[in-house]
Amino acid sequence: MTMKLTKDSISPYVIGTMRLGTWGSNLSTSEYENFIEGCLDLNLIDFDHADIYGHYTTEDDFGNVLKSRKDLRQKMRITTKCGIKLISENRPEHQIKSYDLTAKHIEASVEKSLASLQTDYLDVLLLHRPDYLFDPYEIADVFSKLKKEGKVLEFGVSNFSPSQFDVLNSLTPLVTNQVEISLLHRNAFEDGTLDQCQKLKIIPSAWSPLGGGLLFKESSDTKIKAIQSTLATLAKKYDAATDQILYAWLRKHPAGIIPVLGTSKIERIKAAQEALTIELTHEEWYMLWEAALGREID
Amino acid sequence: MTMKLTKDSISPYVIGTMRLGTWGSNLSTSEYENFIEGCLDLNLIDFDHADIYGHYTTEDDFGNVLKSRKDLRQKMRITTKCGIKLISENRPEHQIKSYDLTAKHIEASVEKSLASLQTDYLDVLLLHRPDYLFDPYEIADVFSKLKKEGKVLEFGVSNFSPSQFDVLNSLTPLVTNQVEISLLHRNAFEDGTLDQCQKLKIIPSAWSPLGGGLLFKESSDTKIKAIQSTLATLAKKYDAATDQILYAWLRKHPAGIIPVLGTSKIERIKAAQEALTIELTHEEWYMLWEAALGREID
Amino acid sequence: MTMKLTKDSISPYVIGTMRLGTWGSNLSTSEYENFIEGCLDLNLIDFDHADIYGHYTTEDDFGNVLKSRKDLRQKMRITTKCGIKLISENRPEHQIKSYDLTAKHIEASVEKSLASLQTDYLDVLLLHRPDYLFDPYEIADVFSKLKKEGKVLEFGVSNFSPSQFDVLNSLTPLVTNQVEISLLHRNAFEDGTLDQCQKLKIIPSAWSPLGGGLLFKESSDTKIKAIQSTLATLAKKYDAATDQILYAWLRKHPAGIIPVLGTSKIERIKAAQEALTIELTHEEWYMLWEAALGREID
Repeated sequence: MTMKLTKDSISPYVIGTMRLGTWGSNLSTSEYENFIEGCLDLNLIDFDHADIYGHYTTEDDFGNVLKSRKDLRQKMRITTKCGIKLISENRPEHQIKSYDLTAKHIEASVEKSLASLQTDYLDVLLLHRPDYLFDPYEIADVFSKLKKEGKVLEFGVSNFSPSQFDVLNSLTPLVTNQVEISLLHRNAFEDGTLDQCQKLKIIPSAWSPLGGGLLFKESSDTKIKAIQSTLATLAKKYDAATDQILYAWLRKHPAGIIPVLGTSKIERIKAAQEALTIELTHEEWYMLWEAALGREID
Repeated sequence: MTMKLTKDSISPYVIGTMRLGTWGSNLSTSEYENFIEGCLDLNLIDFDHADIYGHYTTEDDFGNVLKSRKDLRQKMRITTKCGIKLISENRPEHQIKSYDLTAKHIEASVEKSLASLQTDYLDVLLLHRPDYLFDPYEIADVFSKLKKEGKVLEFGVSNFSPSQFDVLNSLTPLVTNQVEISLLHRNAFEDGTLDQCQKLKIIPSAWSPLGGGLLFKESSDTKIKAIQSTLATLAKKYDAATDQILYAWLRKHPAGIIPVLGTSKIERIKAAQEALTIELTHEEWYMLWEAALGREID
Repeated sequence: MTMKLTKDSISPYVIGTMRLGTWGSNLSTSEYENFIEGCLDLNLIDFDHADIYGHYTTEDDFGNVLKSRKDLRQKMRITTKCGIKLISENRPEHQIKSYDLTAKHIEASVEKSLASLQTDYLDVLLLHRPDYLFDPYEIADVFSKLKKEGKVLEFGVSNFSPSQFDVLNSLTPLVTNQVEISLLHRNAFEDGTLDQCQKLKIIPSAWSPLGGGLLFKESSDTKIKAIQSTLATLAKKYDAATDQILYAWLRKHPAGIIPVLGTSKIERIKAAQEALTIELTHEEWYMLWEAALGREID
């Protein structure tokens, strides 16, 4: 039995795995296991992978837990991504970094992810980047095949422009567009991405929702300092940490943006979960927007 | 009995009220009354307000005329706008300039505008700016409620991008997008705004149709000088004033752009009305475009 | 009998005529005849004109061949364009360079092109540039009239943005959008133009597919040098010339981009035809993209 991803069933946060392995915390198998159980205990059941994380090793790490803990698989939903080809010792055949959304690559990538993750099915497959050569008809066909075979339950994209999303979604239903959204990357608010999600009732998800590390270090940049000062005021008001305010800022948008959490620390995930009770006022949202903009709105 | 706003019934110009009160000419009540009667005599019956004009005082000024001249109300159509919150003595609760298109704010703003304007209904309500947090479903619901209650007859937006317009218009019919269009602000010709109006047969209206005061002052800017020189040639040919040529330039577009007049002088409004007979040739339109562009078209 | 242009029947290349006459090779009538026969022998039957080429003389040159070789007309398809008005000795009435997509100008231009080309019908009429004043309803009507009269069989546009294409195509079916696409002009890959073509199954065609002469001259520009070096590697691998690799690069896109060939030399056209057998790998396509981009993709 699977837990179908819908606008109502999705967790308020997705657990990003990018930095759990060799690209970050380098968790041991038992640490992964503890981390996964910690997330599930918090009722956060969506785990977000990509074939390339850890230079093609993080799916394997994660699969090593599932191998001996088959019970966990049914309690979670797994998203993974394909379509970026990295130059890597683990893919010696790659001569250059490229995108590849051919049916052949998508299918091969799904097979590899299934094997690495030690699972029979992916809950969601995302196309990681818009290959400039993507053929929406070919993709719709391979999605249909993968669905029929039970290998992938739902499909989505990442980093697609509204017109790229539109052409593919007109052929095969997409459940999300995972894009970079944060106080420091506000394009999605103005380039039609969130408008499209609202119109189609698609769930947007946000990678790098805290804007990278910049807001957490001392800075001489005027805008960063203004954001930090506003964050400090709000953190005090809500008796909260800075990251909690940033999650509340994203989640105030009516499209229902799902932040992808990048941490390997259960306490930060717990903090994120607790931040769900913070409701910024409209004016507070704009205080942060204007600090990031560096000026008053028009 | 109301005069429903349609593509056929709209006046060729809308009378802007932004600078009638404390943000400009500071008209007395009797001067307002004369001005309004002068406009109606010219068969210009659309008056364009916003809650914020005159720091939330211009609707009151206007309403003071309607209070003692109830006969005038039926001869005019009133548009007003909501959604910008200014820092103002008259709104001490505002801590920061922000946009707010929540149902709660829209409804409260309509109630205030009705009271200030001393009228039972608004002919048109425009959303003044796209709140980054706008929820099209919530807005469609409150529009429906306001319409059912007879408080607002038609709805539109201002300064919305094509994708913002699209998502809201897919849920509730919009009658206009009032955007900045002039020789000095030509984005609407190229960013899809006018294409969308033509496709949907929506009436675009243009704020700041003369481009602010820049074209009416001596300037050392090469492009401004080139525009002024072309305007002078055309003004001579058509025995017209500069502002008349600029209105004719806007009105040549087949979308039927309605300029919002910013003057409080009846003679300039009369002049605008007279400019309706000026028909620039295609080449003359491009002479002004290329002067503003600073080069030949491609 | 005409050969209807469809996605299946179109030649893999269109023969551009821009530089056959006074804007380039200045072919004599017999040279034109040889060139045309050479193209038809290669089964390349689409000839791409515009009223303005050679300052309004190239259609006449071409028509001089058809006058005495009526047999050739039935073996080819003729596209021509209208809508740009050049300052030219041959159009002394033009005071300024402008665009004009009024019905009146379109109709007059078609009549002139038919007379110049010495033919009864145009296979395809393209609107050369988006006149900022274009009225899609007026254009749809004149297209309908021209089609009914048998003067034009199909219609398309050139250099239209997706929203401009959309509004016109919603009223009258368009067969192509001819835009600038090459390694040095990559906008169409990202601005929605090719997405729209794929969604609507419209044939995109590419003017200046080799990017002008820049890639064929020594250059001190880092990106040009990087492209040239990658081209040299690929040319060696495929035993091909540089222009052949560039055509293969364009044709790899699944939208089926049709390059408009700009040469008057039959051997270069033969080479382009031979390039149809070159199939670049996905990685090779990205090697050229990244060389042109000046960096790795994200």
